[in-house]
Amino acid sequence: MKIAVLGGDGFVGWPTSLHLSDQGHEVHILDNLSRRWIDTELGVQSLTPMDSIQERTRVWHAETGRRIHFHLIDLATDYEILKGWLAKERPDAVIHFAEQRAAPYSMKSDRHKNYTVSNNVNATHNLLNALVEIELDAHLVHLGTMGVYGYSTIGAAIPEGYLPVEIETLSGDKKRQEILYPTRPGSIYHMTKSLDQILFQFYAQNDGLRITDLHQGIVWGTHTEQTRRNVQLINRFDYDGDYGTVLNRFLIQAAIDYPLTVHGTGGQTRAFIHIQDSVRCVELALREAPRRGERVKVFNQMTETHRVRDLAELVAKLTGAKIAWLPNPRKEAAENDLVVRNDQFLDLGLEPITLAEGLLSEVVEVAKRYAYRVDRARVPAVSAWTREIGKIVERDPEGRALRSVS
Amino acid sequence: MKIAVLGGDGFVGWPTSLHLSDQGHEVHILDNLSRRWIDTELGVQSLTPMDSIQERTRVWHAETGRRIHFHLIDLATDYEILKGWLAKERPDAVIHFAEQRAAPYSMKSDRHKNYTVSNNVNATHNLLNALVEIELDAHLVHLGTMGVYGYSTIGAAIPEGYLPVEIETLSGDKKRQEILYPTRPGSIYHMTKSLDQILFQFYAQNDGLRITDLHQGIVWGTHTEQTRRNVQLINRFDYDGDYGTVLNRFLIQAAIDYPLTVHGTGGQTRAFIHIQDSVRCVELALREAPRRGERVKVFNQMTETHRVRDLAELVAKLTGAKIAWLPNPRKEAAENDLVVRNDQFLDLGLEPITLAEGLLSEVVEVAKRYAYRVDRARVPAVSAWTREIGKIVERDPEGRALRSVS
Ligand SMILES: NC(=O)c1ccc[n+]([C@@H]2O[C@H](COP(=O)([O-])OP(=O)(O)OC[C@H]3O[C@@H](n4cnc5c(N)ncnc54)[C@H](O)[C@@H]3O)[C@@H](O)[C@H]2O)c1
Ligand SMILES: NC(=O)c1ccc[n+]([C@@H]2O[C@H](COP(=O)([O-])OP(=O)(O)OC[C@H]3O[C@@H](n4cnc5c(N)ncnc54)[C@H](O)[C@@H]3O)[C@@H](O)[C@H]2O)c1
Repeated sequence: MKIAVLGGDGFVGWPTSLHLSDQGHEVHILDNLSRRWIDTELGVQSLTPMDSIQERTRVWHAETGRRIHFHLIDLATDYEILKGWLAKERPDAVIHFAEQRAAPYSMKSDRHKNYTVSNNVNATHNLLNALVEIELDAHLVHLGTMGVYGYSTIGAAIPEGYLPVEIETLSGDKKRQEILYPTRPGSIYHMTKSLDQILFQFYAQNDGLRITDLHQGIVWGTHTEQTRRNVQLINRFDYDGDYGTVLNRFLIQAAIDYPLTVHGTGGQTRAFIHIQDSVRCVELALREAPRRGERVKVFNQMTETHRVRDLAELVAKLTGAKIAWLPNPRKEAAENDLVVRNDQFLDLGLEPITLAEGLLSEVVEVAKRYAYRVDRARVPAVSAWTREIGKIVERDPEGRALRSVS
Repeated sequence: MKIAVLGGDGFVGWPTSLHLSDQGHEVHILDNLSRRWIDTELGVQSLTPMDSIQERTRVWHAETGRRIHFHLIDLATDYEILKGWLAKERPDAVIHFAEQRAAPYSMKSDRHKNYTVSNNVNATHNLLNALVEIELDAHLVHLGTMGVYGYSTIGAAIPEGYLPVEIETLSGDKKRQEILYPTRPGSIYHMTKSLDQILFQFYAQNDGLRITDLHQGIVWGTHTEQTRRNVQLINRFDYDGDYGTVLNRFLIQAAIDYPLTVHGTGGQTRAFIHIQDSVRCVELALREAPRRGERVKVFNQMTETHRVRDLAELVAKLTGAKIAWLPNPRKEAAENDLVVRNDQFLDLGLEPITLAEGLLSEVVEVAKRYAYRVDRARVPAVSAWTREIGKIVERDPEGRALRSVS
């Protein structure tokens, strides 16, 4: 297949591109390299020394004889270029990773809120619009997030996208229906994924686009089978307060003898998946395209759930690190349960890598190995969800001011 | 109160501004005049001879001694200017009409789709973002549409925004909950209003913004108490295939002895409200602000429902016009029922003007009076919802080609 990987220079996009190339697909990466620019803006860098995309694809070719093509395109602002590229190349499938994906970054300031909304909405809409315009019947696989479900007050297991409900009809009897899960995003970033869902629903219904939306949990781990092959193929590892997800931050904190920072009670339950499984899920989803006219297919792309404090304790046990309790910068429920259905991927043969088995190698192979590159000042989370919260979340466990209060 | 009317140069915004000014409020219109530019793009004009906004506000002042202030601001692209204006003026309430509002226009081409999405999403998001940023606790009243409910397959009456459903919980018993009505917009334009809903939900929940969303039906009629006072205060009347809603097109067709063009079976049921009632509803909603932290308040702003063919027959009876049956350019169910709850406005004292009583004066006072200004070529609807449909909808009842088939 000819596959376009939008956002293929990113943390999940890069190993996905390698994996698909390894399987013999013709892979084209479209990326505007905005994440590298954001690293520069924030003054942070990947823990792992990451090469340029041009260099990485060159090394991949040297290593395997296979080519991954790179195209510098901004999906959000270069509609005509995107359309032209798609019209010329007519890929069989398009995998869409190309969005601003950090919740804390999306909450940093009004500028960051606007950027996230317009980058993500326009990227997704431009893509859908172009597919219709050039009449390209490619299977579109999009990376969504578990976060669209939001903190569920429903008390039901989270289904794969659609919730069965009973509704009282005009005649007074009850009718069973499946509806798109009532979304309750908890940040501007997550909200853009809820907006994406509506765009997908419309284009699937009006234009018959074939769309799969993967509601992904937090991705952990660094290596996949392909990234291990050459040190220059290594994947990025974000540990800063904006892009570093909770587990990465714990690993780094442990590696540099910094206390593991747990926000609030640590009672929030989150869903996780290893990067190797994430890549594999995309491959499985690619094969299961919906038919034209069918509704958007939704998979929950996660393999286990944990409370944040349990994770901290797991990492502490593995490494001897201490735990520090900080105020929560996010506006969310202190404790929540999370039961998530993921039968579809399991039925397709996914055999999950568990945290319990994979975590130690991550500590040794990545966190400790590259610990010398860590900038301690960058570890804490500093974006507050509201101004009131901003006034509380001011100091890190070492007493350093985390943000200037405006 | 000091009230900002965003989009106050438009069809509903203008008479709303006059009405609120008449009641003694300090009214500020913010508008980028994009609708006047779109008239130019399409080569159409209001049936009624409409003055510039500067002239209209001058006439209003001469007539009443009251001032309506006008500010040329693009909400979608001038975030900093909007924020600066709100920070300086700190209005008590903001009424948000400022979106591209024609479904056919939003489906015209890929450029029009992109324009509608980015104009409407950015306008709404910029406004919300700015209110939070400058900590302005103004009541935000937004004009949404009945169209977010979509063609309902649910078979239940359409509630005011929130649908009660029963959900099976983890423990196996059923729990009653109210959810945001599962949206199913039928055009890009309507879809942007669904996106708005998600933005509102997030900002009400995360930042405590006080928001009212008015899900409005099709507005008909031209005059309100205030627009009648001087011929130069007259409201716009759109009759072209893009902006002219179904009833306006029937009125014009009748006035120029053109057959009333019914698309498909005419079995689609739509919701309607007279412009005078619309203006009054906004006034009522303004007073009923939700409390901080409360969910978004939703009203259905409509007073009656009719099938399109029944409307055509009503106008035909009133005027002697003939009816012509054409293929439907929209992708929608041929026949639909529509039962809509609007108890909230009725409870607040709204006394609806009905089509049956108001239609004749509309024919005489407006359609016939200005019939000499009609451009016959502009009456038919020409935007097709999909390419397949585009190939069918080619000729008007006089045999003229309606669009060039690409
Ligand atoms: N990493 C996770 O834990 C996680 C969890 C759930 C969902 N996701 C989703 O998976 C996708 C990929 O995540 P990631 O961790 O690889 O993020 P990432 O930031 O590492 O990669 C995103 C890539 O998209 C590119 N991009 C962004 N906007 C673009 C635009 N307008 N035009 C072209 N390219 C653009 C960036 O330059 C970057 O290379 C995202 O959509 C994200 O929301 C990730
Ligand atoms: N007219 C109807 O039948 C109807 C029905 C349901 C809902 N509505 C809603 O009511 C609102 C008003 O409708 P209308 O019929 O008066 O439309 P309109 O097109 O006559 O007026 C909209 C006004 O907003 C302005 N505008 C658009 N984008 C802007 C931007 N980015 N910055 C500043 N100004 C901008 C336009 O210049 C115009 O003056 C719309 O939001 C519409 O969706 C209208």
